[in-house]
Amino acid sequence: MTARPVPGPEGDCHTAASLASRFGLQLRGDGNVRVAGVATLAAAGPRQLAFLANPRYRVQLADTRAGVVVLREEDAAARPGTSLVAGDPYAMFARIAALFEAPRAIASGVHPSASVDASATIDPTASVGAFSSVGARSVIGPGAIVGPGCVVGEDCAVGEDCELVARVVLVTRVRLGRRVRVHPGAVIGADGFGLAMDRSAEAGDEARWIKVPQLGGVEIGDDCEIGANTTIDRGALGDTVLEHDVRLDNQIQIGHNVSVGAHTAMAGCAAVAGSARIGRYCLIGGGAGILGHLELCDRVVVTAMSLVTRSIREPGEYSSGTPLMDNRSWRRNAARFKQLDALARRLRADRH
Amino acid sequence: MTARPVPGPEGDCHTAASLASRFGLQLRGDGNVRVAGVATLAAAGPRQLAFLANPRYRVQLADTRAGVVVLREEDAAARPGTSLVAGDPYAMFARIAALFEAPRAIASGVHPSASVDASATIDPTASVGAFSSVGARSVIGPGAIVGPGCVVGEDCAVGEDCELVARVVLVTRVRLGRRVRVHPGAVIGADGFGLAMDRSAEAGDEARWIKVPQLGGVEIGDDCEIGANTTIDRGALGDTVLEHDVRLDNQIQIGHNVSVGAHTAMAGCAAVAGSARIGRYCLIGGGAGILGHLELCDRVVVTAMSLVTRSIREPGEYSSGTPLMDNRSWRRNAARFKQLDALARRLRADRH
Amino acid sequence: MTARPVPGPEGDCHTAASLASRFGLQLRGDGNVRVAGVATLAAAGPRQLAFLANPRYRVQLADTRAGVVVLREEDAAARPGTSLVAGDPYAMFARIAALFEAPRAIASGVHPSASVDASATIDPTASVGAFSSVGARSVIGPGAIVGPGCVVGEDCAVGEDCELVARVVLVTRVRLGRRVRVHPGAVIGADGFGLAMDRSAEAGDEARWIKVPQLGGVEIGDDCEIGANTTIDRGALGDTVLEHDVRLDNQIQIGHNVSVGAHTAMAGCAAVAGSARIGRYCLIGGGAGILGHLELCDRVVVTAMSLVTRSIREPGEYSSGTPLMDNRSWRRNAARFKQLDALARRLRADRH
Repeated sequence: MTARPVPGPEGDCHTAASLASRFGLQLRGDGNVRVAGVATLAAAGPRQLAFLANPRYRVQLADTRAGVVVLREEDAAARPGTSLVAGDPYAMFARIAALFEAPRAIASGVHPSASVDASATIDPTASVGAFSSVGARSVIGPGAIVGPGCVVGEDCAVGEDCELVARVVLVTRVRLGRRVRVHPGAVIGADGFGLAMDRSAEAGDEARWIKVPQLGGVEIGDDCEIGANTTIDRGALGDTVLEHDVRLDNQIQIGHNVSVGAHTAMAGCAAVAGSARIGRYCLIGGGAGILGHLELCDRVVVTAMSLVTRSIREPGEYSSGTPLMDNRSWRRNAARFKQLDALARRLRADRH
Repeated sequence: MTARPVPGPEGDCHTAASLASRFGLQLRGDGNVRVAGVATLAAAGPRQLAFLANPRYRVQLADTRAGVVVLREEDAAARPGTSLVAGDPYAMFARIAALFEAPRAIASGVHPSASVDASATIDPTASVGAFSSVGARSVIGPGAIVGPGCVVGEDCAVGEDCELVARVVLVTRVRLGRRVRVHPGAVIGADGFGLAMDRSAEAGDEARWIKVPQLGGVEIGDDCEIGANTTIDRGALGDTVLEHDVRLDNQIQIGHNVSVGAHTAMAGCAAVAGSARIGRYCLIGGGAGILGHLELCDRVVVTAMSLVTRSIREPGEYSSGTPLMDNRSWRRNAARFKQLDALARRLRADRH
Repeated sequence: MTARPVPGPEGDCHTAASLASRFGLQLRGDGNVRVAGVATLAAAGPRQLAFLANPRYRVQLADTRAGVVVLREEDAAARPGTSLVAGDPYAMFARIAALFEAPRAIASGVHPSASVDASATIDPTASVGAFSSVGARSVIGPGAIVGPGCVVGEDCAVGEDCELVARVVLVTRVRLGRRVRVHPGAVIGADGFGLAMDRSAEAGDEARWIKVPQLGGVEIGDDCEIGANTTIDRGALGDTVLEHDVRLDNQIQIGHNVSVGAHTAMAGCAAVAGSARIGRYCLIGGGAGILGHLELCDRVVVTAMSLVTRSIREPGEYSSGTPLMDNRSWRRNAARFKQLDALARRLRADRH
């Protein structure tokens, strides 16, 4: 990992003591250490602040050149230099690091190349970037940023202080709350995958698919984040719904009429099939799948690449799959998986 | 789910009796009930038509406020109000709902901002949207819609009445039949993933990859539908082929030189590796994978997140994976999976 | 598969003998056979060259109409016509086929519709396509091609002879080496998925997510290839790194601060979670997943749809999952998976 000094936009004015006071943290060591940026334990220099949250990196504490380290009480004794003690060092680091994020200067107004329908409403404090288009009856709210190359279709609403980073598509009837951030390549409000097989006389000798009209929309609550190349289909009837503070990583697929409860987070490549209902504070692991029409209660954790095939009524952690093995061992054991029922029957027979 | 009254573009002129007559359905109850839109059983009001197909929702039949319900003969007795009896209520609903889909007014012609190569041919009845580009020798057929932000590369053909919704890329040598609908973010005709490891003297001390030229194209039949952010690579030699009426959901990956038979449907995030040949009327579940160079006969069903590692010669349903468990039980059982071969051998030894 | 004659851009001047001499191959049969293009064994005609590498296609050797076949010594006897003998027929075919790839004429210069920030630097030999934008302080190097509809954000560098095919997004702080090829829809440098749950008093009654600032960038080495709709997030602190000659297929997800060693290739839909470190010359199968913070040594092969849940220290092939079965057998065996630990305990008890 390359160290990259991140200069503080507020100038070089932070010290260990000023950060302790600002965030209500306990200071250990020299409060005069100046903090000009943030870095990892491994890469930080004497003017940078690092953090220790994952025990995996505790061994780096002895050798780090970081000027200040944010850490838990129980790790403080192992730190020779200056530290700030926090109950949750990662959450605290997130707040401190935000001080060092360079503010972007985005001018409000509509880029001369943008294409805006006469019936759309763009707040004067909003920004619409190059080569973006805004369709009929859509509304872009105060302070909202529609980055370059976006397509906002018809009857959409982009709430206050939202950001569509670049090349985002809102297809039709998509309503974003406030402060929603959507990363490039995301597609929200495309047709749900609704098909019926037509075996009627009109279909002739060859049964064929009929498309089920997708008449609903998408409703996304305040403070949601939607990752790059993630897709969220609009409802067939009624809406696909994300409540507030839902966080979706990249390349996630959300089918039509799914509903996701507040504060739920999903890691990359997870997929939820149509009409599933997911509770609040759930954590869905990377590549996990949830079948259609199921219900997950609040506070369900699904581990990576597990497939949920039934509703879950109890909070807790759920998994499917098999452990990783060297391929030769795996082949031997996997072959036996095919005989598992026979083995179990034989074992039972032997006992009687 | 929010109820959204969907006004009928044909005006408020449908009744239960007129729909029964139009679609050849048996009417139960009051034929004068007026139908102004469609909705789910849970959300429908007295001027809306709903349907019952999935037995999961049968319990809602008693309480629905829907003016009309499309249902099967065997469910009709449990419905107090007006109903229309259909052999396949979901397929029938799809046809009725289409009456209530608001027609979009898309003007034919090339948007002033679009960039069209001098050697391309755009039918006068076609539409090319804002910020779209059409490359050398490509042809856009009668009634076709190329939405905003699309890139149609060189030597492509977009057939009659196709729709590229928005921000679709056809890279090169992609030919779409008639009435093909492609959703935003889809990329058709990118280079297949063809690599050979070069261990020759020219590679020097360090073996390195050589790219295999991808000289073929993509051929897509009539009435196909391609989901948002789905990718279909062009052939290395010869074409990647989708026959007619193939339906692909979002985020599907189709490798080079794959062929997919007519009427096959794949759910979100499925992936097919290079040169696999899939039959007609197959159903590939969400997140399922099919390895390269395999053949699947007609009418194969692969359940969600299964991995197909061998050719399938018999129609039927196929699966891999393990059931979902609470994580503690899963850990115990998964640990035993590593011992499965040893367990089976021990069991056999004990019997002799 | 449709045969498509690919005309040689160098004209019709190749013969079996001239190819043998050019690439140092042993010629069998008539050296005067003229070669005007390349094709598969099944589709090739008498003026085309085909190859045999995968034993699966050996049966086609007797019937092929190909004028010349590139094959291994041990297959030469089974070939009636002209052949070229190569140690690695597939790698050799890749080099020969490149002779028949039509060169694309891309004019250097900035398309009049493109939007380039005043502080960006575009080399005079580079090309920037229609509707592309290049942000503040970004640099496009000599011979580089930025295709139509791309967004190059702030502080990016696109090296010599790179190609962004079309509609690629480099979000911010992305540096590409030389000859990097990026396919449509790829998003490089989006925010990593960094979240901390805020349970502090400030969060009020309802714990909520705080976003961890993503202050790093992405560094991509020479000769890498990035597939369509693939996403590579930028680092939280420090960079996400791909060393040289890394090859990524479509729809791959690379989390923040991942590092991938030189010459590693990943097939479609693979996903690597944050801070994982993958060695050189690894092969990651389609749909495989690698959890965060793990390390894989050099020359690790992970089979399709396997999940890597621990670091791998030994080169070799690794797998997880179960074999494909007909669904009825699968259900029987999968049900027993839930009883596996109990079965094993019973078996052990019986023996004592």
